[in-house]
Amino acid sequence: MSMKLFDEIPTQRPLTPLLDTLESPAALRDMSLSQQRQVADELRAYLLYSVGCSGGHFGAGLGVVELTVALHRALETPHDRLLWDVGHQAYPHKILTGRREALSSIRQYGGLAAFPRREESPYDTFGVGHSSTSISAALGMALSARTKGEKRRVCAVIGDGALTAGMAFEALAHAGHVDANLLVVLNDNEMSISENVGGMASYLTRILTSKPYAAMRENGKRVLSHLPGALEFARRTEEHVKGMIGPATLFEEMGFNYLGPIDGHDLAALNQALETVRDLDGPQFLHVRTRKGRGFRPAEADPIGFHAITKLEKTPPRPPAMDATTPPSSALGAPLTSDPGPKSRSEDMSRPKPRSEDMSRPKPRKYCNVFGDWLCDMAAADPRLIGITPAMREGSDLIRFSQLYPERYFDVAIAEQHAVTLAAGMACEAMKPVVAIYSTFLQRGYDQLVHDIAVQHLDVTFAIDRAGLVGEDGPTHHGALDLSFLRCIPGMLILAPADEAECRAMLSTAYDHDGPAAVRYPRGTGPGSEIPTDLVARIPVGKAELRREATAQQDARIALLAFGSLNTPASDVAERLNATHLNMRSVKPLDREAILKAARDHDLLVTLEENVVAGGAGSGVVELLAAEGVQVQVLNLGIPDTFVEHGKPAELLRDCGLDADGIEAAIRLRLHTNND
Amino acid sequence: MSMKLFDEIPTQRPLTPLLDTLESPAALRDMSLSQQRQVADELRAYLLYSVGCSGGHFGAGLGVVELTVALHRALETPHDRLLWDVGHQAYPHKILTGRREALSSIRQYGGLAAFPRREESPYDTFGVGHSSTSISAALGMALSARTKGEKRRVCAVIGDGALTAGMAFEALAHAGHVDANLLVVLNDNEMSISENVGGMASYLTRILTSKPYAAMRENGKRVLSHLPGALEFARRTEEHVKGMIGPATLFEEMGFNYLGPIDGHDLAALNQALETVRDLDGPQFLHVRTRKGRGFRPAEADPIGFHAITKLEKTPPRPPAMDATTPPSSALGAPLTSDPGPKSRSEDMSRPKPRSEDMSRPKPRKYCNVFGDWLCDMAAADPRLIGITPAMREGSDLIRFSQLYPERYFDVAIAEQHAVTLAAGMACEAMKPVVAIYSTFLQRGYDQLVHDIAVQHLDVTFAIDRAGLVGEDGPTHHGALDLSFLRCIPGMLILAPADEAECRAMLSTAYDHDGPAAVRYPRGTGPGSEIPTDLVARIPVGKAELRREATAQQDARIALLAFGSLNTPASDVAERLNATHLNMRSVKPLDREAILKAARDHDLLVTLEENVVAGGAGSGVVELLAAEGVQVQVLNLGIPDTFVEHGKPAELLRDCGLDADGIEAAIRLRLHTNND
Repeated sequence: MSMKLFDEIPTQRPLTPLLDTLESPAALRDMSLSQQRQVADELRAYLLYSVGCSGGHFGAGLGVVELTVALHRALETPHDRLLWDVGHQAYPHKILTGRREALSSIRQYGGLAAFPRREESPYDTFGVGHSSTSISAALGMALSARTKGEKRRVCAVIGDGALTAGMAFEALAHAGHVDANLLVVLNDNEMSISENVGGMASYLTRILTSKPYAAMRENGKRVLSHLPGALEFARRTEEHVKGMIGPATLFEEMGFNYLGPIDGHDLAALNQALETVRDLDGPQFLHVRTRKGRGFRPAEADPIGFHAITKLEKTPPRPPAMDATTPPSSALGAPLTSDPGPKSRSEDMSRPKPRSEDMSRPKPRKYCNVFGDWLCDMAAADPRLIGITPAMREGSDLIRFSQLYPERYFDVAIAEQHAVTLAAGMACEAMKPVVAIYSTFLQRGYDQLVHDIAVQHLDVTFAIDRAGLVGEDGPTHHGALDLSFLRCIPGMLILAPADEAECRAMLSTAYDHDGPAAVRYPRGTGPGSEIPTDLVARIPVGKAELRREATAQQDARIALLAFGSLNTPASDVAERLNATHLNMRSVKPLDREAILKAARDHDLLVTLEENVVAGGAGSGVVELLAAEGVQVQVLNLGIPDTFVEHGKPAELLRDCGLDADGIEAAIRLRLHTNND
Repeated sequence: MSMKLFDEIPTQRPLTPLLDTLESPAALRDMSLSQQRQVADELRAYLLYSVGCSGGHFGAGLGVVELTVALHRALETPHDRLLWDVGHQAYPHKILTGRREALSSIRQYGGLAAFPRREESPYDTFGVGHSSTSISAALGMALSARTKGEKRRVCAVIGDGALTAGMAFEALAHAGHVDANLLVVLNDNEMSISENVGGMASYLTRILTSKPYAAMRENGKRVLSHLPGALEFARRTEEHVKGMIGPATLFEEMGFNYLGPIDGHDLAALNQALETVRDLDGPQFLHVRTRKGRGFRPAEADPIGFHAITKLEKTPPRPPAMDATTPPSSALGAPLTSDPGPKSRSEDMSRPKPRSEDMSRPKPRKYCNVFGDWLCDMAAADPRLIGITPAMREGSDLIRFSQLYPERYFDVAIAEQHAVTLAAGMACEAMKPVVAIYSTFLQRGYDQLVHDIAVQHLDVTFAIDRAGLVGEDGPTHHGALDLSFLRCIPGMLILAPADEAECRAMLSTAYDHDGPAAVRYPRGTGPGSEIPTDLVARIPVGKAELRREATAQQDARIALLAFGSLNTPASDVAERLNATHLNMRSVKPLDREAILKAARDHDLLVTLEENVVAGGAGSGVVELLAAEGVQVQVLNLGIPDTFVEHGKPAELLRDCGLDADGIEAAIRLRLHTNND
């Protein structure tokens, strides 16, 4: 009857006899309840095993094992459309839909994507990566079916965290208005929202956890015991109505039929509920309570710590029995990653592998930690500093800041639009807001950056993390466009650090700058540089740094104009080709004099950036040269005009030709072509 | 006691003796109620007179005359912060805060801006243009005051239309969560939401017009008359709770203290309410009901028709008496503009002045109408076509489409994010969604365009209106960035028509294109071209059109590479300078062969676009030349790297050097410089 519980991650492939027979989820529809339960147990075992082998996220997946089985049973997937909002909740879905063996390749180069993806399977009806899109997309599908006269069910599964974005609310209200045949399943995983998460998250938590029935009964009693006149009655009634709104009321008001909450681990209850709502006309809202990490005791006990794991050591084979009370990190024999927080968005939090370093160099430091330290230090020095994050406290490393300066820390939940305009309002009051945001998530607040900050030339600093190729999260998370969409905005200062120390200096520089300013830095560690602990360092705005000058006359004199992270391969290439190497530092404004001098003294300028070429930093260089009437050969290297796949950043950079070998080859090819 | 009502727009400057004595709104605070009423009457008279002289928007302003007086009286502006969300509701505010005489210059070049603007007055605390930003910005100010320990009230005035955007909800919920000292005044102007407007608009309408008190009383009666057991009670109670949520409940749940609704034209009631809420701690929500056009009988009778007017004829002086029952358009002696709809966003809807045309040319047609006609025609030909607008049915000209194809028409209210992802969902189902959106509003859906459409290469067509300099609405509305923020997106097709016929052909071309495609066209009329009525015409993707070839050898051979609207001045300049003129048509992909040929055959290439130079179409040209290793002089002309002011488009283009004279001068200067 009850699910199989696990105390440890299987290191041997578990037997999954029933799952093995499942060619497609359609077979679930002919199974008995006990067989479905067995599938769920086997699915959970396999998920634990597979993620144990490969590393990755399983907390979210463990929580939706039963829901996944029930949904594929109740709906005729893939004819019926099942959409998973972002988060890592789709792993069991991938296992059930023909990707069991491939799951061990998840997030790896050439392997399965971290999230649902249309190219990967007909069961993946809509690709995701950024949260809160599923209801809009599902509504589009439902309305299409209506227009075409097709009989087709559409179901969006969205987490309570993702439901906090304004766009999810916009979509809910629109679905209610047009009376679409749409099922929204709220995967409410009962994680308490961290106390500092605000906005819609806290509003929804209040709504979702309120108890309208009980309140009404209480209210009814009072009605019966007091009847001091109509006015008094109305007043008291009003008081009780306030604070009484429950999920039923809210979602019914939006036009949905609300059912729930039901236990998301009770397959019988799920089956019954889904059978009820799947064939009802109009918008249906099914509220399902699940538990992250469910079925794996260490994760249930510590869902934060077990959001994701790095892969288990393969040798020696693990002893079969383990004490479930052992603390998770040692119990697993594999380091546990820190968790980005219950309502934080998915991201790769894998700890970097220890590597043998050139000990003469300082230890590389993650850029997000460089930012986190700088933020605390600057906050100590300047009481005007405010730190803002849209639900990325852990990912952007605002943890210490939030503890040290809770009154100046604002986590607005998944609400980038609001985050940016909130900062604008603060800047109007001579505060100094710093918005910590990932490159791709800034796209959500783009209009607010242009319209509320840049048009008014307000003094807001953007710490743009995950700029460039982020790795395993893939095309939805690569920060490949920010230089292009920022560079066109009048008055923006845009800086890109070559290393950790420069990142810190640039943050101070951007902070000093009276107007909108951005420092964009990549995910992961820098090349290793001595990071000062004081706040003295600045970089001169619009001045490049000459890192190397070509020492002898060559056939072709080459200058590398490198932006940000690509200064690292540029150093190698400059040595190999005896080229001049400029660390450009500032994308906007560009260093006009340095570029003109480089053009005078060289035969070929090579611009290097971890951004698409179109409209990027190198594009700015050729614009400048054109404006100056200077004719020189320029080779713009950057991310190609395509969406780059997932994989390790190093693999992806290599594929884009942005490692030292690729850069060298591109330059040699160009020189060869020029000589033809 | 009651306000002064007007039957006509004063053509003589009205006597405003009390208003004349008002040096600043502070003086309101010492006035008696009857004096305040007199100020309101004089303000209304002056507003009518002034807008009658200059043309412009007065419906929204007339509706908030009393509210404006009451707010400036109750709050100590400008120390207390008063923020007006977008819409044209700030005209009375501008009159009361030292800009009475300047009001006649509103929206004119060098004159007052259409909206609040920080540079213009210390009373304009936050600049607006796009809607729904005020609560976020006000919250930023309130939290800043808290952090600084300053005693300062902050008040955002937002219309019920603007409240429908998700970001406004995000901000409300956040304000409630952090318990900010913030007053939100809902200017609920009781305009019925048009039946086709969906989403949060209809949800809010239901909430705002529901009557919790009455429902509870009704419910109470039922409770008393039936008591068939606890379960039955709970069931019935639940039924009654559903549909009973009122504004009090909703906003209280979000953490606000709700007061209202009150009559927004009753100064005494406003004063009392504002005195009550202004000094309460925590988030306050005051629901004020107003009437658009209030106090001007023709506008009250026809608020849609009287959203805005063009300026009245000055001569001869108008006869003093007029029948108020005369239909507005003839009654006013000035053409009335069509209204963009009660919940549509502000924009300049002024009708183009009749002008003496070269009669050999077809009559110029507004691009939005070219789109509107095309949409209807293509919808007739293709049942898969879906039309989507975020609350711009009138502005984007989807009126006829919405009437002909109501089942394929979706107005999602002010919710660009949702609009774009809704289209993505439809494209997944092999429908053919067409999203009609203004250039600057597309910034609100930027992430959704990248993440939901482009990453998945979904087939969605964007009809991007108001691309380039829009005129009187100013920097918040100029579509100066779209080529840059679109060009960096992999797989986008971007087309820019030179005239009306090409616009129609490009819409068909973009529609045929299997993937994301955009046609971006300017506000207003094209140069005049014969527009076919069939759907045969297409343009070859990535092929420029040679419009003129330089006929004789010059000192310098010049080629003009013109994109979209700037083909018109380019024609003149090409004649003057005997230059080659290419209508480039496609911004992405570019016509590689045409550009390379132009580079071979000319000494100077001049790119022309109504977009910023940084990252724009001309930037693409220099990128291409660099990639090809071709060295040639290039002059990139476009909107400069600054936010352009408001004024007539022709004035602004001239100021940007993008009229024929400016372009010619820039070319001559460049040639001169090259020869130095």
